[in-house]
Amino acid sequence: MAALKLHDLVLSGNCYKVRLLCSLLGLKLDLAPVDFMGGAHKKSPLIEQNPFGEIPIFEDGGIVLRDSQAILVYLACKYGGESWLPTDAAGMAEVVSWLMVAENEIARGPNDARLHDKFGFELDADLAREKAKRILGLMEAHLAKHKFLALDRPTIADIACMPYVGLAHEGGLSLEPYPAIRTWIGRIKALPGFIAMPEL
Amino acid sequence: MAALKLHDLVLSGNCYKVRLLCSLLGLKLDLAPVDFMGGAHKKSPLIEQNPFGEIPIFEDGGIVLRDSQAILVYLACKYGGESWLPTDAAGMAEVVSWLMVAENEIARGPNDARLHDKFGFELDADLAREKAKRILGLMEAHLAKHKFLALDRPTIADIACMPYVGLAHEGGLSLEPYPAIRTWIGRIKALPGFIAMPEL
Repeated sequence: MAALKLHDLVLSGNCYKVRLLCSLLGLKLDLAPVDFMGGAHKKSPLIEQNPFGEIPIFEDGGIVLRDSQAILVYLACKYGGESWLPTDAAGMAEVVSWLMVAENEIARGPNDARLHDKFGFELDADLAREKAKRILGLMEAHLAKHKFLALDRPTIADIACMPYVGLAHEGGLSLEPYPAIRTWIGRIKALPGFIAMPEL
Repeated sequence: MAALKLHDLVLSGNCYKVRLLCSLLGLKLDLAPVDFMGGAHKKSPLIEQNPFGEIPIFEDGGIVLRDSQAILVYLACKYGGESWLPTDAAGMAEVVSWLMVAENEIARGPNDARLHDKFGFELDADLAREKAKRILGLMEAHLAKHKFLALDRPTIADIACMPYVGLAHEGGLSLEPYPAIRTWIGRIKALPGFIAMPEL
């Protein structure tokens, strides 16, 4: 097997998702730290690998992928089998619907609030916190009735959604009102091979 | 085969994606128009089918799905086979990475600009148009070198991304500077079974 490589930022929840799934799958992953503050992801050679100018960027032999959710799909499909991303239409669609929550509601909610508070990004932090409370409320109601987001077992839906929810406090949001979410995060933390982010 | 059903709004590009893929796949789809202005999607019984309070909502027998991108995955996986969503890890991840562009950059760009201009949504239209120009530029560069977004053939990546790009003029954005995008839209319009949106 060719070495797996991640162009990585330790503080990025999107990079952490990839590190976490690799660890849960028992895959060796080479980390190439990116000088994010120096803008290395917006310059050559990284900009040729990902014209969107973002990290993570993932390499497996000659394959180069952008977008953390797409990288999770690749890892699950190639190395994780049926367990992390089912191949039946209904199961796959259910997982994908939660990948979309990670890309949309969570990114524009708790992630944006954290980008503002922790990294000084210029964006509407009040709007981000309003959006965060909406998606946290929806997730709380769902997780009060389900152990994991998409299926009755952990899938990449959980790996995609957990990091920025778990980091909500760095965007001024408490998880105190969301006991089912906290229990769910605990279930993920208890998975064999779990690794933490420093702030989580 | 149980009847496929879409809770539908004729002016929604997200609903149109589902109608379009069904037509391309030769699937019969029952349309249940939603009283969007009356807020029917935020009330019972639709809110029980999709707690996010959004359309499209899709039904296939007892299966109920939310999120247009997830519905495309379901249809491709169940009825479209390898052609519209490949099952190999690299191909699937490439398609998914563009589904994420539909959910993120296109939704927050041309779609938001249209929501503001055409439907009076209160959002930052200048920011939406700035984001739109960024993603249109990235897509133009990509499509100058590729016939379709993810693979050398049409996939659900194209079906997911095309509608709100093709509707960009309704958000005050011209596609005149983007010849490769216009040629790509033409390729999709030429597919057997293509159906149009009135405004497209």
